[in-house]
Amino acid sequence: MPQPAASINPERLKTLLEGVNRFGFNPETGGYNRPGFSREDLDCRAWFAAQMLDDGLSVWNDGALNIFGRFGPREGPCIMAGSHLDTVVNGGAFDGSLGTCVALECVRAMKDAGLTPQKAIEVAATSEEEGRFGGMLGSQAITGAVTADWIAQATDAEGVLLTQAMRSHGLNPTGILDASRAAGSIAAFLELHIEQGPVLEAEQIPIGIADRVSGVCYLELDFTGTANHSGTTPMNLRADAFAGLADLAATIPDLIGAHGTDQSRITIGHVTLTPNHPHTIPGGANFSVIIRDTSEEVMRTLREAFLKNAQAAAGRNDLETAVTERSWLSPVLLDSGLADLLENLAGQHGLPARRMPSGAGHDAQTMQAFCPSALIFVPSRGGISHAPQEHSDWSDIEKGANLMLQAMIELSGATG
Amino acid sequence: MPQPAASINPERLKTLLEGVNRFGFNPETGGYNRPGFSREDLDCRAWFAAQMLDDGLSVWNDGALNIFGRFGPREGPCIMAGSHLDTVVNGGAFDGSLGTCVALECVRAMKDAGLTPQKAIEVAATSEEEGRFGGMLGSQAITGAVTADWIAQATDAEGVLLTQAMRSHGLNPTGILDASRAAGSIAAFLELHIEQGPVLEAEQIPIGIADRVSGVCYLELDFTGTANHSGTTPMNLRADAFAGLADLAATIPDLIGAHGTDQSRITIGHVTLTPNHPHTIPGGANFSVIIRDTSEEVMRTLREAFLKNAQAAAGRNDLETAVTERSWLSPVLLDSGLADLLENLAGQHGLPARRMPSGAGHDAQTMQAFCPSALIFVPSRGGISHAPQEHSDWSDIEKGANLMLQAMIELSGATG
Repeated sequence: MPQPAASINPERLKTLLEGVNRFGFNPETGGYNRPGFSREDLDCRAWFAAQMLDDGLSVWNDGALNIFGRFGPREGPCIMAGSHLDTVVNGGAFDGSLGTCVALECVRAMKDAGLTPQKAIEVAATSEEEGRFGGMLGSQAITGAVTADWIAQATDAEGVLLTQAMRSHGLNPTGILDASRAAGSIAAFLELHIEQGPVLEAEQIPIGIADRVSGVCYLELDFTGTANHSGTTPMNLRADAFAGLADLAATIPDLIGAHGTDQSRITIGHVTLTPNHPHTIPGGANFSVIIRDTSEEVMRTLREAFLKNAQAAAGRNDLETAVTERSWLSPVLLDSGLADLLENLAGQHGLPARRMPSGAGHDAQTMQAFCPSALIFVPSRGGISHAPQEHSDWSDIEKGANLMLQAMIELSGATG
Repeated sequence: MPQPAASINPERLKTLLEGVNRFGFNPETGGYNRPGFSREDLDCRAWFAAQMLDDGLSVWNDGALNIFGRFGPREGPCIMAGSHLDTVVNGGAFDGSLGTCVALECVRAMKDAGLTPQKAIEVAATSEEEGRFGGMLGSQAITGAVTADWIAQATDAEGVLLTQAMRSHGLNPTGILDASRAAGSIAAFLELHIEQGPVLEAEQIPIGIADRVSGVCYLELDFTGTANHSGTTPMNLRADAFAGLADLAATIPDLIGAHGTDQSRITIGHVTLTPNHPHTIPGGANFSVIIRDTSEEVMRTLREAFLKNAQAAAGRNDLETAVTERSWLSPVLLDSGLADLLENLAGQHGLPARRMPSGAGHDAQTMQAFCPSALIFVPSRGGISHAPQEHSDWSDIEKGANLMLQAMIELSGATG
């Protein structure tokens, strides 16, 4: 029996994304602020749930505040599709939100085409993917990877406990443990996301099919020296925590040259000096270090080399050091069967696509430990993401979303 | 006619200093927070004025919020003695406050000894010496060195305007211009201060007589790159503002080695990254640079070399730069006649003392442009200052304060 033609409606998708992005917009910077478990994040999730209710889906949330909208049979395993709604501080309009909206638009397009899934489809808006609290909380909760100990100690870069952040909104942190799904209840996970890198744009290919995802090691370091007057303390008698940090950071290019690959990334993104006063030698430097690679062995080597350099820089600057490993996400090979399916469907529907690694972490990598998972990329203008300038062309988005739609139809056994 | 014996009362002095330090104490850190024109600073100044009133002095403040207490003749030029009451953020108990309290204790000791000055003595508690707004506001206002343009644009490291800070307390910023004293109205300025460096302690000499003071160049730099996702952006395609700052800061030791002296100091004490998020490459870095030396020529050379390095580091990291020179205080030769007098008095009274340069800026250097000025140091334990651990031994303080007392008696022509 031939399938009815189904295709996504880009205007409707755009309107949905604009609806999401009314939450947390900062007109001064042009960026979006919906950090996980912020007021804006919660308001946005409630609004998105209401949209799915309007579409006639069965809607609920779990104890980790993941939102689900189910279309099709009430029982049996589902095909889950979606992404996250939270943002980094001053993030862009597309990261996570686009993939969440695309998943719902695909369901709307199936309904428009009169398609009924044999296997249920669940649209998922996962929570706290951006790692405010050091993990990828929503999808990790679904897969049962979160422990009570982790919940109790997780803090954000400002020192706010996850438990405090949840309780401030009347949420019960132990509910996160109840979010884990039964084995076999999700047959596949599909995620569309912006590439956040420069590859697809440079090659003028509208669709990327990720086959592996870089791991992420998140370290927090403290250098402690002696705060002192900037005029009287001779340079050679200082214990300047910022000088030590600069000394260390300046070694990163050579360190990657010696031990890294073209997929290696080391980033110092968050720095807090104490007392952070122009006329005082910094007595303390607290900073984040994010190490990524698609090879776990390379990640381990980079971490060891970096911490060795940290000790050496601290020694040269007469500083004490403390290191906390806030999280370690291993690199992941995504499901090759699903990647093959996406590649075949792209070919059948005339949608140019290429396989590629993902330098960024995504919910799909967490879900892969639980069920076959796939990740579709659309190009990012200038490779820019996590910033107000983040943009993807709607002609590319339409192509990627239609590939997602075809995969949903195929995997759910939808019929007209 | 032989002078009556006069000497300071260390217990009374200690009590006075403890009174000052009830304002802005942070029990968590053990430090003191009285930044210029903060609530704590204003409250402290009002309390100190009340103490001087209790001592029977004529007390008033000028439009820059310098507080004065006059002892002796109402008319004619005065001998001014004092220091500042404001602190850096999380500063120590002695910086500035000790010298202000010593000046008042010297007056009290003269009164105890029945001494009456021929020339009036003014105890001065100067305002905003620590450079929150980029200058040495109180003493500069006395000497007429502050302009209306400077007042209008001066901001602190958090972007708060001086005018906002003053108006928030009901103070009129243009009053600063009215604080300038008439030429000849101050015959000499005497300041006692902690050394804030390691020299006197190392040499076990209780008193330093500063003969010159390092200049201070305060630069504010902005590096602007591109905020981006820390996982997807290859290292060689980044415009990482923090990487540029680290690259620059790591050049400081070699820069001083090539162009500096043993009196050269370069300090990066205040850093603000944007967006300052662990998972985002920093798109912006705003930072302070303080350059000091006792030679103005060396200062100029260091500034040029530093800015050249900044351009090179920015170029290597694909960053835009902006440089603001927030202030330039030239090095100062203090009055040699007063230094000779102090050295002679120290010898006469058996107080071991040595001449030395001052690495830190002080009100005395500003006052030297207006009247002969002198600066007495007492040792700092471990050379530590601008920090809660700041400490000076009371046996040393007593010696330094007695030298100040003898100089006051001599210069004011006091008789019993």
